[in-house]
Amino acid sequence: MVYPVDINGIIIGLYRFLHEPSVQRKHMPKRPLNLKLNRQSEEPIYRQLIRQIGGQIDSGELSAGERLPASRDLARQLGVSRISVVNAYSELRGAGLLSARAGRGTFVARDREPAPLFSAPPPATPDTKRRAGAVREMMRLASKKGVINFSHGAPPKEFFPVRHLQEAINHVIERDGGDALSYEVPEGYLPLRVAVRDYVRAIGIQCRYESVLITGGAQQAIDLVLQALMSDGETLVTADPTYLGIMDIAQARRVHILGIPIDEDGMRIDALENILGRHRPRLIYVMPSFQNPTGHLMPLHRRRQLIRLAKGHGIPILEDDVYREFRFDGEPLPPLKALDENGGVIHTNAFTKMLLPGMRIGYLIADSPYYERLVRVKQAADISTSGLNQRTIHLMLQRGILGTQLERNRLALRRRRDAALAAALRYFPSGSRWHTPEGGLYLWVELPADGPSAAETFISAIRHDVAFAVGSMFYSGDGGTHALRLNYGIHRPQTIKEGFRRIGKAWQSLVADYGSVERSAVL
Amino acid sequence: MVYPVDINGIIIGLYRFLHEPSVQRKHMPKRPLNLKLNRQSEEPIYRQLIRQIGGQIDSGELSAGERLPASRDLARQLGVSRISVVNAYSELRGAGLLSARAGRGTFVARDREPAPLFSAPPPATPDTKRRAGAVREMMRLASKKGVINFSHGAPPKEFFPVRHLQEAINHVIERDGGDALSYEVPEGYLPLRVAVRDYVRAIGIQCRYESVLITGGAQQAIDLVLQALMSDGETLVTADPTYLGIMDIAQARRVHILGIPIDEDGMRIDALENILGRHRPRLIYVMPSFQNPTGHLMPLHRRRQLIRLAKGHGIPILEDDVYREFRFDGEPLPPLKALDENGGVIHTNAFTKMLLPGMRIGYLIADSPYYERLVRVKQAADISTSGLNQRTIHLMLQRGILGTQLERNRLALRRRRDAALAAALRYFPSGSRWHTPEGGLYLWVELPADGPSAAETFISAIRHDVAFAVGSMFYSGDGGTHALRLNYGIHRPQTIKEGFRRIGKAWQSLVADYGSVERSAVL
Repeated sequence: MVYPVDINGIIIGLYRFLHEPSVQRKHMPKRPLNLKLNRQSEEPIYRQLIRQIGGQIDSGELSAGERLPASRDLARQLGVSRISVVNAYSELRGAGLLSARAGRGTFVARDREPAPLFSAPPPATPDTKRRAGAVREMMRLASKKGVINFSHGAPPKEFFPVRHLQEAINHVIERDGGDALSYEVPEGYLPLRVAVRDYVRAIGIQCRYESVLITGGAQQAIDLVLQALMSDGETLVTADPTYLGIMDIAQARRVHILGIPIDEDGMRIDALENILGRHRPRLIYVMPSFQNPTGHLMPLHRRRQLIRLAKGHGIPILEDDVYREFRFDGEPLPPLKALDENGGVIHTNAFTKMLLPGMRIGYLIADSPYYERLVRVKQAADISTSGLNQRTIHLMLQRGILGTQLERNRLALRRRRDAALAAALRYFPSGSRWHTPEGGLYLWVELPADGPSAAETFISAIRHDVAFAVGSMFYSGDGGTHALRLNYGIHRPQTIKEGFRRIGKAWQSLVADYGSVERSAVL
Repeated sequence: MVYPVDINGIIIGLYRFLHEPSVQRKHMPKRPLNLKLNRQSEEPIYRQLIRQIGGQIDSGELSAGERLPASRDLARQLGVSRISVVNAYSELRGAGLLSARAGRGTFVARDREPAPLFSAPPPATPDTKRRAGAVREMMRLASKKGVINFSHGAPPKEFFPVRHLQEAINHVIERDGGDALSYEVPEGYLPLRVAVRDYVRAIGIQCRYESVLITGGAQQAIDLVLQALMSDGETLVTADPTYLGIMDIAQARRVHILGIPIDEDGMRIDALENILGRHRPRLIYVMPSFQNPTGHLMPLHRRRQLIRLAKGHGIPILEDDVYREFRFDGEPLPPLKALDENGGVIHTNAFTKMLLPGMRIGYLIADSPYYERLVRVKQAADISTSGLNQRTIHLMLQRGILGTQLERNRLALRRRRDAALAAALRYFPSGSRWHTPEGGLYLWVELPADGPSAAETFISAIRHDVAFAVGSMFYSGDGGTHALRLNYGIHRPQTIKEGFRRIGKAWQSLVADYGSVERSAVL
């Protein structure tokens, strides 16, 4: 089936819970708040809540020390999602208008120090309000102080070679002066293109520097490929679940996503073959090494099958290899591009993931005629990627900093992976399932299908000061309602253990709170 | 008329000359080269020439010291453009395979030091070969050593506050460490958004920081707006001539460009009104201050007319204000966005132009619902702009470096403008016309309509070691055949004088060389 990307189902699992009125409770708040919500408004519900409750506090209608209804009760009273109320209360606490007392509830603050609501996100447009809103609200909750957050897609910050970067930037500025700060050519800084050619040759990709295009991270690389190869309304094939960013792009570019089910070796070739026989997709997007979100590694024989199948149907493949170097077990496998004999594979990777996300430097390897189209789109998109950043990354490669970095990543990531596996075994509910990742940042866990969903568990987890990414977000269609993506890579072993303990507790407390009968009203 | 952007006519003026067989000459080369060109190939003609001539030198078929046909004669013999031959010879000289002796011709080099042909551009795809190829070939010729190059769109490099930048980057890295190198939120680094809000308030734009979106330069800002607001095949209105980058974007995004003629106050409102009555464009793109390429400044009354007219037709305006701060005469005018009362204007500017092009930091000011769509497209495009670069620009703004920079720009640019006007008066052919720019980087000159075209003059100019941008490049339709865009901003007064002298000489020598009868065969 072809799923248009902006259907509501993308995070249906999360929404099924978050946007239903909360479950019944025995008692209503003693003093209902007088709030008027406009569901047609551009302004999200939680912003309306902030504005109106804040206004009532400012006007004195709500007086200092007054107790507010529990978020669950207010959500029920208003018929809105609980998460909207939780968010609004959280913002108002952050602004000093409310105070929370553990175990007793939420009160209008007595000694107020109003602060600007800086962290509030802008309102979303109607057509994306549901998905974008939910992802954002989830991210916001996850970034609450004290929360052990496994929901990120970022590499561990403490690995960033900050001092090396600083030295390299200074060296580049001293060496190149104003030249480093002029426009760069769209294809990229030539010595960096040559260095990328040498780097990918070492992993088996035979190419000339003329096939290397420098981009603003892998995200821009993927976006350029979709723009260069696809028109409005065409169809893209990807694994299901898949990288969240490709769904963002597909939505922005108005192309459809066709999700192919996976097994532990990645995208299923039988399912793909079946689909290609009936549809005419323009592009296959695949992340063969330590896929985001599942962490799966596509074995060599399937890589070959995939290339053969795509070639047979004349469909190009975009290989996203950003997790390749996060490998800590097993032997490295050749990228698809190294197995490609007819120029049908476009390869992307980024120093963003491997080295320094904030530098936003990635690259594409593409043969003619794709390459020329990509350069044209790149030039239109932003003329060129920052020359200073390109020169800095080039110097860091020359100095061998990437290699040192990757070695350190490997050792630390394996320790963290091991800690995650041990903690999962110890704390996650019996009946949970996961696959042992040989690389990458993620553990993908399936909770027992007859227990609370991942979205339900998320809400409970936030109360227990822990967060993860809800699996259904990564599906173009239904699926993942009981899956969690856990980025163990960003935490130290002790923190992983404590975080997983909290997740286990959050799940258990849900089961205890609701009981099986009440829960059935929600699911 | 609606012009699809990839029609051949974009630079028809340049092509009319460059891709016609050269004018007749009395004698043919003594020894014609044995070359076989494939016009259907992806490989551009000049690359084929490089490969074949280079191969014959390597194989000994062409021996050291042998004289090659003049580029004009070889172009005629092969029926290709002269510029292709000039380019090929130039590359082969750069690679040490050929040598040139002033006034005597081109020879196979005796003491060869082959060098990689690093500066060769990648081959272009067939559909853009003509335009992209010509622009690139022109840029390549213009960047030849010894050429005084007025063809750039870049600000003067010697103004870049390189030391301040270096200090700021070091400060940011010391202060923020890994935080400066993590992913930034798509909307941009919050303190920078607040600083931008304060900056635009000072020029009359009332907005909240929630309306500020940080982008990878103004080019990305424009591209995001086209992506957020337009679909394949829709129509964009712009001045004719217009910014080259908007034509790149329109081509990449498959939207049509509708060119509105200008007068000295910018886009003609009567022509626009006429067009809006018959077409349904989705967006009006306008650069009201010191327009690229003409340098024209739209006066206040026309700004108001434009806003009223667009509002009446319900069409949003994208205001590109990147040259606003390059003003050295007169009083500043309010940007369109400051006159906009209904959220119909989206405003963009960039620290790229004003401060440091290589940092690639620009911004958009947009109201709801445009803003939310733009954020979505931005996130899909590259997740976020480099956090390190955003923080650095923010610190430089805080430290007041932008203000100092702009003041210095103003003084130097006025001196350079004055030098350009004086030199134009002294050296350009009588009958040439120009408008006195009150700001910006460009002088737009119309050569006498009955003399050599700008493209012809360009070829001659390269021989005289001077270059400019050919006017027809900036037109979506016909036009500009006798116009030149001269970036006086990047040269010191003495260099401007010498460069303009060479242009005058190049034009005179054309007239003397061809005579009026021969020229008529070309035009």
